[in-house]
Amino acid sequence: MSELVALLREGLPPESILTDPDVTASYAHDMASFCPAGAPAVVVLPRTVDEVRHVLRTATALRVPVVPQGARTGLSGAANAVEGCVVLSLTRMDAILEIDPVNRIAVVEPGVVNADLSKAVAAHGLAYPPDPSSWEQCTIGGNIGTGSGGLCCVKYGVTAEYVLGLDVVLADGRLLRTGRRTAKGVAGYDLTRLFVGSEGTLGVVVRAVLALKPAPPRQLVLAAEFGSTAAAGEAVARIMAAGHTPSLLELMDATTIEAVNRVTRMGLPDSTQALLLAGFDTQDPAAELAAVGELCRAAGATEVVPADDAAESELLLAARRATLVALESVKGTTMIDDVCVPRGRLAEFLDGVAAIAERRRLTIGVVAHAGDGNTHPTVCFDSSDEDERRRAQASFDDIMALGLELGGTITGEHGVGVLKRDWLARELGPDSVALQRQIREVFDPLGILNPGKVL
Amino acid sequence: MSELVALLREGLPPESILTDPDVTASYAHDMASFCPAGAPAVVVLPRTVDEVRHVLRTATALRVPVVPQGARTGLSGAANAVEGCVVLSLTRMDAILEIDPVNRIAVVEPGVVNADLSKAVAAHGLAYPPDPSSWEQCTIGGNIGTGSGGLCCVKYGVTAEYVLGLDVVLADGRLLRTGRRTAKGVAGYDLTRLFVGSEGTLGVVVRAVLALKPAPPRQLVLAAEFGSTAAAGEAVARIMAAGHTPSLLELMDATTIEAVNRVTRMGLPDSTQALLLAGFDTQDPAAELAAVGELCRAAGATEVVPADDAAESELLLAARRATLVALESVKGTTMIDDVCVPRGRLAEFLDGVAAIAERRRLTIGVVAHAGDGNTHPTVCFDSSDEDERRRAQASFDDIMALGLELGGTITGEHGVGVLKRDWLARELGPDSVALQRQIREVFDPLGILNPGKVL
Repeated sequence: MSELVALLREGLPPESILTDPDVTASYAHDMASFCPAGAPAVVVLPRTVDEVRHVLRTATALRVPVVPQGARTGLSGAANAVEGCVVLSLTRMDAILEIDPVNRIAVVEPGVVNADLSKAVAAHGLAYPPDPSSWEQCTIGGNIGTGSGGLCCVKYGVTAEYVLGLDVVLADGRLLRTGRRTAKGVAGYDLTRLFVGSEGTLGVVVRAVLALKPAPPRQLVLAAEFGSTAAAGEAVARIMAAGHTPSLLELMDATTIEAVNRVTRMGLPDSTQALLLAGFDTQDPAAELAAVGELCRAAGATEVVPADDAAESELLLAARRATLVALESVKGTTMIDDVCVPRGRLAEFLDGVAAIAERRRLTIGVVAHAGDGNTHPTVCFDSSDEDERRRAQASFDDIMALGLELGGTITGEHGVGVLKRDWLARELGPDSVALQRQIREVFDPLGILNPGKVL
Repeated sequence: MSELVALLREGLPPESILTDPDVTASYAHDMASFCPAGAPAVVVLPRTVDEVRHVLRTATALRVPVVPQGARTGLSGAANAVEGCVVLSLTRMDAILEIDPVNRIAVVEPGVVNADLSKAVAAHGLAYPPDPSSWEQCTIGGNIGTGSGGLCCVKYGVTAEYVLGLDVVLADGRLLRTGRRTAKGVAGYDLTRLFVGSEGTLGVVVRAVLALKPAPPRQLVLAAEFGSTAAAGEAVARIMAAGHTPSLLELMDATTIEAVNRVTRMGLPDSTQALLLAGFDTQDPAAELAAVGELCRAAGATEVVPADDAAESELLLAARRATLVALESVKGTTMIDDVCVPRGRLAEFLDGVAAIAERRRLTIGVVAHAGDGNTHPTVCFDSSDEDERRRAQASFDDIMALGLELGGTITGEHGVGVLKRDWLARELGPDSVALQRQIREVFDPLGILNPGKVL
């Protein structure tokens, strides 16, 4: 038994320590493409805060890197193992400790699955809005680590806006409490927010106080078809400029529509170059749909289909939900990007991606949280075709450059991980990178927390 | 001429540099009680980013402390001068650079007055929600520095939630850009949020990208009178637990009501121990008022007065707006506290403050943003009475201790400054303070930025 495993056993039960290489190898990757991963020395699955502290103390004593993991549904390699590391899976710390309707907070362990929390708070008439696509698998700890978003963000904001306070195990095993349980608070620097999106490089979240919202009325959805991306982009601009606040505003481009048609036989017309889905969960959503439908028509929509009820709304959303599977079926492998641009430049971005696809001879579908300007260009490629694989990887750089050129950011909600480390430096510039490095050193002077990620 | 002034003149026009001690002394204080202040060596009023950079470069070269200031309406001494410092007033950098309705952002200089921004965006059908009481004087830069709130926060959140990106001049004069212009973004650690509420100790904000909301419908207000604070607290709990989202939910205690009655002759009944004001800016506010009125009655309200229109709503709110002046009239001087507790413990807090007032033989009125649990106990005292002054100061500590005991924070929205430095350390604990100090050193290795504040 290695010294590492022997020391870990002093504070963890044997069944919480995995060392079989076949098993530990299955913890090496999250869902990102093109991201290297090493082989973990060991995988630990603690059940208590004290066990996590023991893991960090052990790692500090032996100078062994620690890679925190949730459900590994991330798309930037942030949860990928590094060679010889301790993989620290928080999935077994999955208790919802408290739901408080008066103070509208939930207190949870990091391994709670997003959907489980959503269902639990719904029973109290409350909602935890952040809804990443992977919400049925992904954990709150992972959501906090990546600062994840979802469809609801256009109205309800991202994960960061729902994290009031954290318990964090620091690199040396100390337990830090940040933030508060109250609705407001400005006591000192905002360490809570610093941990959100830090991808496990500053500490390990073991408990979170989350803000909840009253459950909204059921949403009604409208679908609008457009003959050009420019028209769809114009509709998005008009909807937002007119002061509407949709609960979702999603866009699919022609490539995505075609893929969805092929897989689902939904029969969207071939002439449709862009499909816009707008949802409203206000008291009178039908009135909003009527107004937004008019704006879509004025922007050039070829067809506008407002749902009459929840069932019809779900049918319309089915097209959006089918996109990932549909795009995966095109070539077997996808690389899902995540670029956020000012929403006024959405059409330019879509046209730019289409040009990249043509130049690189690739199929790239774009789905976008259009209301936020947050796009997910999805590159479809055959990973066994070396040349196509290379072109796919090259298109990634093209897409990042395009996003920055349009005043956007290289990541709206998926995070940096290893995938976008170099591009992060380009977006931030050397002064910001230097400051961020120094902040990281404050929290992790030995460099054992998720090394090689983010910066 | 001192070396400091000579160097400053190399990058600032003479009219932007004030050295007359009678004049500079008038910049020594913000509006906090019991906070020491030194005499500034010089006050500078730059008009451009380059001038600010020159000031910081000069201060770094000579190791002179710099105290950034907005309108000095703060209540924690964060903007108080330190002996021999450069007071850096940002009030002349007051341009609104951009208002963009499609992307719902404004780009502003730090000296823009909150009310001026609100009016400017209203002309585009938009709103900048954060509304501190001092909104007609206070600046956006000051709001960002203190992380300020206001009445609207219960529905719309605090300043921090509206700051998307910043331009910050660092201690050595370098210009750092943080954040983004997009609705979402998770590129690297959240430096933007770290600067918000840092009270000028990490850098000087010279430009901000702010998120805007669509202007809401006009709000309708309801007033409810209660025979006990417990009943009013119960009403707040029931309103929030029932899933209502008021646009304001304000509470005044018996002492405040009495003071307001005396000053305004509004004639609130003597038996009223607590007055609750609830506002709604939804499409159908009358329906919300009816429902909330029922909840108030069920919680024991002795009278419920819903406004029929905007004019009546304003009349009801006049009582709330009169509180500060009314409480000031009690003894000539007030010390306005700022403690946020979980809203479920509001009644306990109010009773605790009443007990402190009795024990210390003081008049303490409490107004609260009840929907957030954010209270402002206001100690009324005669500053020429040395004994009363001492008792007032002692009550401050009692109130902080009470807030922490109830699971609250020592500052909901006014910040730490010098007033609450010691209490901050108590709330955070030594590990957090040590980390925050190290972060501060990353940004300000020479310790010239607003020394002695926050930590």
